[in-house]
Amino acid sequence: MTDTTPAGPRHRVVIIGSGFGGLFAAQRLAGADVDVTLVARTTHHLFQPLLYQVATGILSEGEIAPATREVLAHQANARVLLGEVTRLDLEARTVTHSAVGRVTVTPYDSLIVAAGAGQSYFGNDRFARHAPGMKSIDDALELRGRIFGSFELAELASTPAEIERLMTFVVVGAGPTGVEMAGQIAELAHRTLKRDFRRIDPASARVVLLDAASAVLPSFGERLGGRARARLEAIGVEVRLGATVVGVDSTGIDVERADGERERIEAVCKVWAAGVSASPLGAQLAEQSGAELDRAGRVQVLPDLTLPGHPEVFVVGDMMLRDRLPGVAQVAIQGARYAADQLMRRVAGQPPLPAFRYRDKGSMATISRFSAVVSIGRFQTSGFLAWLMWLGVHLVYIIGFKHRVTTLLHWVISFLGRGRAERVMTQQQVFARTAIQDLGEDFDPTLPRVPKDRPGP
Amino acid sequence: MTDTTPAGPRHRVVIIGSGFGGLFAAQRLAGADVDVTLVARTTHHLFQPLLYQVATGILSEGEIAPATREVLAHQANARVLLGEVTRLDLEARTVTHSAVGRVTVTPYDSLIVAAGAGQSYFGNDRFARHAPGMKSIDDALELRGRIFGSFELAELASTPAEIERLMTFVVVGAGPTGVEMAGQIAELAHRTLKRDFRRIDPASARVVLLDAASAVLPSFGERLGGRARARLEAIGVEVRLGATVVGVDSTGIDVERADGERERIEAVCKVWAAGVSASPLGAQLAEQSGAELDRAGRVQVLPDLTLPGHPEVFVVGDMMLRDRLPGVAQVAIQGARYAADQLMRRVAGQPPLPAFRYRDKGSMATISRFSAVVSIGRFQTSGFLAWLMWLGVHLVYIIGFKHRVTTLLHWVISFLGRGRAERVMTQQQVFARTAIQDLGEDFDPTLPRVPKDRPGP
Repeated sequence: MTDTTPAGPRHRVVIIGSGFGGLFAAQRLAGADVDVTLVARTTHHLFQPLLYQVATGILSEGEIAPATREVLAHQANARVLLGEVTRLDLEARTVTHSAVGRVTVTPYDSLIVAAGAGQSYFGNDRFARHAPGMKSIDDALELRGRIFGSFELAELASTPAEIERLMTFVVVGAGPTGVEMAGQIAELAHRTLKRDFRRIDPASARVVLLDAASAVLPSFGERLGGRARARLEAIGVEVRLGATVVGVDSTGIDVERADGERERIEAVCKVWAAGVSASPLGAQLAEQSGAELDRAGRVQVLPDLTLPGHPEVFVVGDMMLRDRLPGVAQVAIQGARYAADQLMRRVAGQPPLPAFRYRDKGSMATISRFSAVVSIGRFQTSGFLAWLMWLGVHLVYIIGFKHRVTTLLHWVISFLGRGRAERVMTQQQVFARTAIQDLGEDFDPTLPRVPKDRPGP
Repeated sequence: MTDTTPAGPRHRVVIIGSGFGGLFAAQRLAGADVDVTLVARTTHHLFQPLLYQVATGILSEGEIAPATREVLAHQANARVLLGEVTRLDLEARTVTHSAVGRVTVTPYDSLIVAAGAGQSYFGNDRFARHAPGMKSIDDALELRGRIFGSFELAELASTPAEIERLMTFVVVGAGPTGVEMAGQIAELAHRTLKRDFRRIDPASARVVLLDAASAVLPSFGERLGGRARARLEAIGVEVRLGATVVGVDSTGIDVERADGERERIEAVCKVWAAGVSASPLGAQLAEQSGAELDRAGRVQVLPDLTLPGHPEVFVVGDMMLRDRLPGVAQVAIQGARYAADQLMRRVAGQPPLPAFRYRDKGSMATISRFSAVVSIGRFQTSGFLAWLMWLGVHLVYIIGFKHRVTTLLHWVISFLGRGRAERVMTQQQVFARTAIQDLGEDFDPTLPRVPKDRPGP
């Protein structure tokens, strides 16, 4: 019998990020003879594909964001640290991260970087204040406050113009997130809120989906994109393609049409679902390793998902640039598992795996209840069957986490009934203190906002 | 047949507040020949007795805070307006309210004021920043962030002293809210988080329940109070009575004991559940009607819950001072129904009801799962039977609202399992930007907090 007790200290793996890439990499390393440290700037794993349901009041934040350390509680070789990574040092092999001012330097033997991507405003970061993105729980709760808040203020408004701009919702970006948001806002207005107001008629709300490109859901192909568009229009969404956003302010959005004409849409509530830009950690990796960065800040990796000259550093998920793979959950999950497997082989002294190959499991987007589009290789379908497939896939995923049963219940409520269980706006998030603040003279700026001396922001 | 069409415009009832008083008054007026306008500064009705479960991660905010306008959606004579009431004019019979700067003046024929109470720091409002109260959803989410955040930071801390102060939780006030919070924090630390951390042992967390008075749950009598105390101590809560808080700062709390000695407890996370002070609208009512105010700002009302000289103005709930009735849900509900009934009789030209009489339906408080205290008149019980009664009463109440089934599920998760489904901290609420910010030199103030240019606070 050989002694299997390791001679030296265990191989230290640091994982950055608690999204699909980070969490699945950590889980894949369960049982491996390594110490795993997952560093993330939120305490939760985010199931981003359902973020639009938190924004529109269907699900609670807890339902799509289980505590990362709870998911990993029984994995003895993994620890979780709250921290925003500020510096990577590929020479010293250390990660510097800080949480609420506490700075920690964590050394590694292998590193898996899965820090994801944020919203991109294509150089117009000033738009962010008026058109929040859809990348985090904070974004979703902010938008929830703005969406429901718009109807509240419309009920109080006095002029038709004011009511109109409060009841116009503009979603920028006709990819899956934008399509799902536009569809849900339309359902919310036309179905959920139908009987809730006395002066305004929520069913008359206008939902506009804008994109500079010429198609809805371009990644799904022309046929499915066309069907998605038709379905959106059937539920009352105004689809405007070839429309480039050139300005966003508190009361509206300016677009330039394909014919060069400019047009303004008066709308208080805007959602930005148009572009992503990889974590700024990508730039640090590129600088230190010589890897290339694309315009979205993604890092070009080698066929085994490592950095040139740094076989101990893997980059996976939305930060990774490889074979034009899209920034979707499956790419992150498969990349993370590959990186973990490769790393374990190396630690065990086994020969390396062949180059990473992505298996396309297809993609899907919901448009409204009972209606979705699904594309799996050559198989394409839309409508109710596609929606059932969407439901099935998400239920299977959700069962993977503990106590997500309430999610199913909330879906029953929303899809079969017309309710939304999670409509809370907090005072912290309330609409109030953002775009609406500067709505013009007919709004009194001396309102009692959240008291300044209160704990909180 | 007589013509029942009203000759003039309908009687206009304005209700201020969407808590138990406001909502139940509005519901009681369903079907009455009046126009009801409910003005409230939140868009939800808050089931305050379960706020501690939101703060400790058991329930989502939506589960205890249904949208007020959804609850009243089918009541055709009621409309709901978002607004903070800034001015009452009893002469002109108008209510001035503002939402996000939009000022609205709403006239009334009858007024029901049910604006509730906020936390009182007994003249030490500077404590609020370091020890949030337990009166609103914002409070509960803020505390959720601080409680879970404390453990996160303890996992990162380097010195034993730092770990100790991050893992000490002080709850001020041994009434029902304080007892329930202390019990839940103890269960969270000792049960839920048991396996979630690697460096700290959450089971070693210290939970201190302080009160200046000499008893736990004094309103439940000596015997039940004693049992509650014994149960709290059994689950590891340190009960300190006769301890007056004289100072609160970011890292601790200073108390003066009954013997005059001062003592400091190092604790980052503090909860204030010690006192209430009625809405400042009480002072306006007193000034304009000559009614008396007590020290907590409550308004002395006549036997029919109206103001002297103003039979058209009712005050109910936590703002009302009458027969030493406590600030509990049942007093608000019964007062609201009485006011609505009295008002309907007046409008219908019927003789008035006799003076308001409160029927004490008893009170209850949970201490931990499976353990509560219940006092109904002379009947008193504690332990599991009391807990079953608590569960029964809350289930019945909750069934009164649509889609609260998830609440039951979350309870199954928390009481039978050890999970907490709702542990999300948002970046907006994260601990980060409050008490923790000034923790001392070992914390770097140059941390990446929530970017200033982001939408939000």
